[in-house]
Amino acid sequence: METYPCIFCKIAAGSAPAKIVYQDAEITAFYDRHPRAPVHVLIIPNRHIDSANDLSESDAALIGRMFLTAVRLAGDHRIAENGYRLILNTGRDGGQTVPHLHLHLLGGQRIHLGLNH
Amino acid sequence: METYPCIFCKIAAGSAPAKIVYQDAEITAFYDRHPRAPVHVLIIPNRHIDSANDLSESDAALIGRMFLTAVRLAGDHRIAENGYRLILNTGRDGGQTVPHLHLHLLGGQRIHLGLNH
Repeated sequence: METYPCIFCKIAAGSAPAKIVYQDAEITAFYDRHPRAPVHVLIIPNRHIDSANDLSESDAALIGRMFLTAVRLAGDHRIAENGYRLILNTGRDGGQTVPHLHLHLLGGQRIHLGLNH
Repeated sequence: METYPCIFCKIAAGSAPAKIVYQDAEITAFYDRHPRAPVHVLIIPNRHIDSANDLSESDAALIGRMFLTAVRLAGDHRIAENGYRLILNTGRDGGQTVPHLHLHLLGGQRIHLGLNH
């Protein structure tokens, strides 16, 4: 798969360790190594994309599938009914530290990260 | 358009006031009435959807378009380079208070809402 020297590319390619919860030809989902909530999963495209700024119109279906994968994983982790938060950080002001697009799924307790509405 | 008695349906239909920044047949984007950052835009589907839990596979393109609209609006507001945060809250634990699916775009300063990576 990827040979790009990026930790998330390596996870998607299976050459760096992670607890994978879902993978298909386009998307990989794995548990965050430093969870900030009882359920904390990262959903990434297997293809290297630096950030949301690098998406094009043709990526709409990919982004939609990442989102729907997060929603399905919320159900699988039995947090759908109580609720959860999806966060995508971009750049410095957004607090993005790994430059490979990733969507956070956070739940399993009342999430105080991010804003309440 | 919508006749559902929901404040965001009314905004999408033009029957409740809001500062609209973008609208098409599927999506409306408007400034949050109580901004939590210099740029705080909400992106909603015009069609009433309670929450992410009510999305189906056929909504992938809609969700993708909401996302790409947020990214484009970040560019329009000149916050793309410095960064921004996209947040989608679902249910009680997620802190969702308006039961009409909405994506937050936050930027214009270092965002401390949500987690930093």
